[in-house]
Amino acid sequence: MTPRRLVYYVSDRTGITAEMMGKTLLTQFPAVEFETRTLPFVDSAEKAQAALDEINAAAAREPVRPIVISTLIDDELRSLVLRADALCIDLFAGFIGRLEGEIGLPSSHAVGLTHGIGSPNTYDRRMSAVHYALAHDDGLAAADYDEADVILVGVSRTGKTPTSIYLAMQYGIRAANYPLTPEDLEATGLPKVLQPHRPKLFGFTITPERLSAIRNERRPGSRYAALDNCRQELHTAEGLMRQAAIPVLDTTSKSVEEIAVSLLHQTDLTAHTLR
Amino acid sequence: MTPRRLVYYVSDRTGITAEMMGKTLLTQFPAVEFETRTLPFVDSAEKAQAALDEINAAAAREPVRPIVISTLIDDELRSLVLRADALCIDLFAGFIGRLEGEIGLPSSHAVGLTHGIGSPNTYDRRMSAVHYALAHDDGLAAADYDEADVILVGVSRTGKTPTSIYLAMQYGIRAANYPLTPEDLEATGLPKVLQPHRPKLFGFTITPERLSAIRNERRPGSRYAALDNCRQELHTAEGLMRQAAIPVLDTTSKSVEEIAVSLLHQTDLTAHTLR
Repeated sequence: MTPRRLVYYVSDRTGITAEMMGKTLLTQFPAVEFETRTLPFVDSAEKAQAALDEINAAAAREPVRPIVISTLIDDELRSLVLRADALCIDLFAGFIGRLEGEIGLPSSHAVGLTHGIGSPNTYDRRMSAVHYALAHDDGLAAADYDEADVILVGVSRTGKTPTSIYLAMQYGIRAANYPLTPEDLEATGLPKVLQPHRPKLFGFTITPERLSAIRNERRPGSRYAALDNCRQELHTAEGLMRQAAIPVLDTTSKSVEEIAVSLLHQTDLTAHTLR
Repeated sequence: MTPRRLVYYVSDRTGITAEMMGKTLLTQFPAVEFETRTLPFVDSAEKAQAALDEINAAAAREPVRPIVISTLIDDELRSLVLRADALCIDLFAGFIGRLEGEIGLPSSHAVGLTHGIGSPNTYDRRMSAVHYALAHDDGLAAADYDEADVILVGVSRTGKTPTSIYLAMQYGIRAANYPLTPEDLEATGLPKVLQPHRPKLFGFTITPERLSAIRNERRPGSRYAALDNCRQELHTAEGLMRQAAIPVLDTTSKSVEEIAVSLLHQTDLTAHTLR
């Protein structure tokens, strides 16, 4: 039996990058039971010493030594923590060295800019986009669609709301979302409020089976959730979107991250959070 | 003058991990102008070849060769893309090898689980938490506070709404948020709807100057935004929270990521998205 393994994420800032990389690395070992602990904001010699002490205490206690995944930038703090009795994985040092060689400039050793406020403009744009997404969820305030970067369109429960929020939070993209209601689907052509904004529309669809399952969780046994109704709504909505030449993404079995990236990939929208 | 550098993020899935690591690495070279391009969903030999062609075309066109940052897991696709005329940084290979040695097991070479749906339970929990955060934003539906994992409390515009959404989206934590209104602040003690939930309450505060600036963007020149009013509201709210023994976080100059991680760090809330 493979024993449980303690994993420490150590960061001078939030630890989000370390956690994300670590999660991907650990996923490669499905047979092992990992227990993860994040030590964020390790930005002083005292905190680095405390982190080292905690890791070494765990090493003494556990049957196998822990794994430490670090994004510490400061040389002194890093060399202190990486002295731990553990497999120490330094996520940055090797890559920074290679980049310095390639670019021909020394690195700045600036601590943790990635998940801080960073550029106030970029951060304000993200937060303002979040408020925009909330105010323009589910067909609300369609009069302001001029300010939208993208308007997600689809029948109820195709993933529009979480995606519009994710696009705002992660990329600073102002995403409104408009649900195609049964009334909209009975009419011919696009709903009136959407017509002036056709270049900004992006359609979501999903399989009838998955839609019915999702809707049944919300309103069990309802007409709204019935498979034949879902099939009919989706068929009509897809026809409408095809006719209006709106790009359409099938969100079945896609996570909100995958939906967002697919959308960015299929449009000329620009993420405002990448350099 | 340092010329512009093209950077390609290449991934078999979303590329989010590559972008995040890359952003942190590139931030260390503030003097260089990087132009980044993400090539997501490179999951076949054809797509890997297309990626290679695009990178090599750029290498031939640009004054300096590009930088490639890859999270490709599949050995064949990776070795194809990393043949590019570029500085190729493979974010996983070295670490996976060291982990295999430490753990004593081969890695699974499973592609891109990090930002996919992954465990359906975890994913459903995140999406359900997002819907919960939206339905319980700004004091709405206080009758359901029993289901909350945490209830964020503070005067208007201290960062409660983006944080509750971020906690839901990233960590699957059900976060409601309740604004302390001027009426709440005139009364003595906690608002009635909050009283049964004291162990779940978490307070936000901010400097009066920053609060006034944020509110002035929303309602310029208003009493709501006036510095003395902000100072008074914050003073009363802080007293109320101290009296009720609610933990309080100062959100001034903290990003939503930093606020969320600080909150996790100060409470016993469990992120549902980490292994």
